[in-house]
Amino acid sequence: MTRSVNVAIIGSGVVGSAFITQLANLQTKNLAFNTIYLARSSKEALYNTDYKPVDLFTYKQEPAKPVLGLDELTTFLVGAHRPTILIDNTSNETIANHYPQFIKAGISIATPNKKAFSSALQTWNDIFSAAEQDGAGLVYHESTVGAGLPIIGPLKDLVLTGDRVETIEGIFSGTLSYIFNQFSTPEASKVAFSDIVTTAKSLGYTEPDPRDDLNGLDVARKVTILARISGFEVESPTSFPVESLIPKELESVASADEFLQKLPEFDAQIQQLKDDAFNNGQVLRFVGKVDLKNNKVSVEIGKYPFDHPFASLKGSDNVVAIKSHRYPNPLIIQGAGAGAEVTAHGVLADAIKIAERIAN
Amino acid sequence: MTRSVNVAIIGSGVVGSAFITQLANLQTKNLAFNTIYLARSSKEALYNTDYKPVDLFTYKQEPAKPVLGLDELTTFLVGAHRPTILIDNTSNETIANHYPQFIKAGISIATPNKKAFSSALQTWNDIFSAAEQDGAGLVYHESTVGAGLPIIGPLKDLVLTGDRVETIEGIFSGTLSYIFNQFSTPEASKVAFSDIVTTAKSLGYTEPDPRDDLNGLDVARKVTILARISGFEVESPTSFPVESLIPKELESVASADEFLQKLPEFDAQIQQLKDDAFNNGQVLRFVGKVDLKNNKVSVEIGKYPFDHPFASLKGSDNVVAIKSHRYPNPLIIQGAGAGAEVTAHGVLADAIKIAERIAN
Repeated sequence: MTRSVNVAIIGSGVVGSAFITQLANLQTKNLAFNTIYLARSSKEALYNTDYKPVDLFTYKQEPAKPVLGLDELTTFLVGAHRPTILIDNTSNETIANHYPQFIKAGISIATPNKKAFSSALQTWNDIFSAAEQDGAGLVYHESTVGAGLPIIGPLKDLVLTGDRVETIEGIFSGTLSYIFNQFSTPEASKVAFSDIVTTAKSLGYTEPDPRDDLNGLDVARKVTILARISGFEVESPTSFPVESLIPKELESVASADEFLQKLPEFDAQIQQLKDDAFNNGQVLRFVGKVDLKNNKVSVEIGKYPFDHPFASLKGSDNVVAIKSHRYPNPLIIQGAGAGAEVTAHGVLADAIKIAERIAN
Repeated sequence: MTRSVNVAIIGSGVVGSAFITQLANLQTKNLAFNTIYLARSSKEALYNTDYKPVDLFTYKQEPAKPVLGLDELTTFLVGAHRPTILIDNTSNETIANHYPQFIKAGISIATPNKKAFSSALQTWNDIFSAAEQDGAGLVYHESTVGAGLPIIGPLKDLVLTGDRVETIEGIFSGTLSYIFNQFSTPEASKVAFSDIVTTAKSLGYTEPDPRDDLNGLDVARKVTILARISGFEVESPTSFPVESLIPKELESVASADEFLQKLPEFDAQIQQLKDDAFNNGQVLRFVGKVDLKNNKVSVEIGKYPFDHPFASLKGSDNVVAIKSHRYPNPLIIQGAGAGAEVTAHGVLADAIKIAERIAN
């Protein structure tokens, strides 16, 4: 007997379209996914008032309707009287803030959107207390940290089965992983920090304005999520020390281009830091840390010996090391932590887990 | 509304008793586990014909009944007319061979017992085809490889969401990890292989007869499981090359003591291998490999450069590196791969996942 769920997808950008392709090609035994709503942009959506499924192979060409507002969308989805998963493949904060309403209406959520989980603590509490009510939807968000790497699920498993997390330490930005892996190596190297940032931008590894990576806020959001899962109620991603890699003098220059032009003037300082570390047999890495013993969270430049797992990181890989009562030698998970395919498969794996629980 | 499942536990050895303690202390919202059967040895079990739950805090002291045979047990569990999870915390092959019957009867299984998944391919097929039938039980076995490390689940997620696994390579024996991490290091060392084996035995890291670790069969079983999940239908754990660390001349000596006495006579050969590797900037590690491109599986002594993640492994940690279409830089998972607490929490996390799907 095949069980089925309804699916509503918001977003068909880089991650969104990878997700749609993976879902279209999904082969699950005894489990069917009917996409009854697909917002392919912030303005256009595909759906049928009789809930006839959208064709995931032709969604780009089909004639579209205006997107439904979030309340309208809730009413539309609930009206199908079927178990429903909302896939939010955006980084939109308004949608994120609506999660508690979706969940209370019985709609489950699978998403890589960090906003809902890493903003004010109140939003986090609203989401997870809503999810505990009878008839509420489920919430899975593996891809909010490290893309498809198995981090959120295994960490929740540890906590739920009674382990005591002591520290979490990791490299959570693909962009900053790439920059520091290039800049600071166990082999002597003289390449300038600003040159690597410029190269990273030209390779498409950074945000359009690299300062959006260098300010450390994306890392702070991920660390906030991991801390909260571990039981440390971080108030917000700006409520703890976050080291910015943007020189103070360049915070307010008008454009990304001007920023990159002036960045070389500040190379000497970080070069000194790197040389000092190198002379001590260490590399620099941009890390997020959660210290549950001392109730401390931080985002900073850390120093690691040449034989540390963080020192041998390749490309733009992410890595997380979880020390706990059961894992005094840390549990380490490492691999691509950004990219459309791996982010999408994390979301799809979550959607399958939800479907296994709610499909009928 | 609290949903509940019935639980039947077989085994209260090292892993089994850790599991029982974790389950007894489990705090899950809206989810209750009723242990209606607990076999505390191969002879004694606790259960009540009216299905009144067994007390997990006092199970060692309670008066026991003789264990139920596997058919009787099935009848007893099915008679409760409730969703039921069987926890097999043994390494018993007879119980493993009965899994298809349990599953067909609607009983789900969570287990660290490798036997069912790593023996004849027919048993594997029987289990997973039974699990696809209407009303069948579910099967989760995270702790069969790497104890509680998240390996089986994430690998199944990759395959299910359409990734193509290319190679899996790893260190899957805590005992052999310890022995090789001590023996072959990026720093020069002259300690003899036989001395490390003797120390490992005295620390309780080996089986009573260390040859049961050194023959590589435990690693072969784990590699068989990973290969099958990845879509490579390995016939049995003895159907591919497995390098044994037992010198041929010592395979048939009568006792473990005699084996350890004579092992030093064979130190020179493996010492030479280690010295050659060291002079090439490499360490030796005992690894299992699955090569999906060339349909090859093997267990062997591998050589890895000093800066490879396998070279910096600590203690008795396990590690697995999964290369796939989506992870050309491998996905690496590393940490304690043996031990009662981490094995038990892997089983408990599986039991929770099953309960989330079947409880009512």
